[in-house]
Amino acid sequence: MTASFSMSAEQRAAELGLRIPDYTNPPYGGRYGAGLKAFHRTGDFVELSGITPETRDGEQVHPGAVGTEVSLAEAQDAARQTAINSLGLIRLAVGSLDAVAGLSRALCFVLCAPDFDRLNEVSNGATDLFLDVFGPEIGAVGRASIGATSLTRRNSFELWLSFEARPLT
Amino acid sequence: MTASFSMSAEQRAAELGLRIPDYTNPPYGGRYGAGLKAFHRTGDFVELSGITPETRDGEQVHPGAVGTEVSLAEAQDAARQTAINSLGLIRLAVGSLDAVAGLSRALCFVLCAPDFDRLNEVSNGATDLFLDVFGPEIGAVGRASIGATSLTRRNSFELWLSFEARPLT
Amino acid sequence: MTASFSMSAEQRAAELGLRIPDYTNPPYGGRYGAGLKAFHRTGDFVELSGITPETRDGEQVHPGAVGTEVSLAEAQDAARQTAINSLGLIRLAVGSLDAVAGLSRALCFVLCAPDFDRLNEVSNGATDLFLDVFGPEIGAVGRASIGATSLTRRNSFELWLSFEARPLT
Repeated sequence: MTASFSMSAEQRAAELGLRIPDYTNPPYGGRYGAGLKAFHRTGDFVELSGITPETRDGEQVHPGAVGTEVSLAEAQDAARQTAINSLGLIRLAVGSLDAVAGLSRALCFVLCAPDFDRLNEVSNGATDLFLDVFGPEIGAVGRASIGATSLTRRNSFELWLSFEARPLT
Repeated sequence: MTASFSMSAEQRAAELGLRIPDYTNPPYGGRYGAGLKAFHRTGDFVELSGITPETRDGEQVHPGAVGTEVSLAEAQDAARQTAINSLGLIRLAVGSLDAVAGLSRALCFVLCAPDFDRLNEVSNGATDLFLDVFGPEIGAVGRASIGATSLTRRNSFELWLSFEARPLT
Repeated sequence: MTASFSMSAEQRAAELGLRIPDYTNPPYGGRYGAGLKAFHRTGDFVELSGITPETRDGEQVHPGAVGTEVSLAEAQDAARQTAINSLGLIRLAVGSLDAVAGLSRALCFVLCAPDFDRLNEVSNGATDLFLDVFGPEIGAVGRASIGATSLTRRNSFELWLSFEARPLT
């Protein structure tokens, strides 16, 4: 929140002290299936693979159903960690956070019980982080928040993100 | 249904008497989180933010689980209202309904009980409206209908739409 | 698995003995709603409509909730059949499996009970097939696996796939 928007996204991420995972070492994929890749770029449009609140070692941040097993605050923390992980995928896809021209859409899946209705507040944990890092011009994003019956390993959150990359020079 | 497909989409919307919300006044976003935007355009490909059956004042059309709290007919009405709302987002994104070259895909989330299996009929409430407004060439759309455990504020429907815009001149 | 990656995707599909449905005869769409289309291409980016484990006659492969009514092995079989169906949609969209430059993303919806947490293993049934047909360069794909409360006709799986086509010549 103290980060100035005159800084670049990489500078803001550094100032915020974010620990962004490196998806080159070990290489992305392999944990959940064969032949999965982190992203695909068609022209300047980039689609990222699904991202979860897990460390690169597979340690989970607050797994379980939001509203019963996981509190709103914990779910927001899981969503924020997921967004930080997505920054690592963005670096893998386009080399630097500063190569993002604009976020496009964030489809947010929340593992939750049927009577939990504050899904948007969970997703804010992810999209507020984007705003802090990219600023309001690049970091604003379209969004939907969808309650899932289950997610792999009962993660509480999963992010499905697309963005526009700066043109290759 | 009486609209002729020789008319433009804006003309058909007028003939159908649709009351399409204006997302410029008040500006889109802010109700559910900071830094949300209505759309992103990459080249001619446009992704819209998630859209729900709510008025611009936040009044909900038939919230609750379809099959238990909400009837099929009510859910179809909610889906139709959501599609009408999306027309307002399309105008915001590209200026006019006539600037749509073709709808691409509609991912339809339906808040429903596990034994409700007529999700496609709910989604028809949205995609039939697109057909009425845009005609069969531009208004046909890819689609999937997915049962959600919950949605924000327990809305019964949420639409995740992408489309191709006419090239900027 | 015995298919060599020096062959083209069409050759591998033939060697694997896949029976890929023809979506031109009868024409795609109409079963679930009016005005549905199989795909939309914007530039070289192609979005496919939702695909399910059903034959062209509407016969379902292993419908029901995974983990209770449907076993993991049956769900993987349904996912594999869905992926085979998507090959038919790809042919419809771009003429040949060999016109795919790269798969982009596979959003996999799994109808399942809340305590089922091996969704990724279900989705492997689909994405392993892509790897077998397209090889690791073109067939690797971004992915997420989402538990759905219900799907139309209680199908156990639904695939939402995007890909990059080779440029039109």
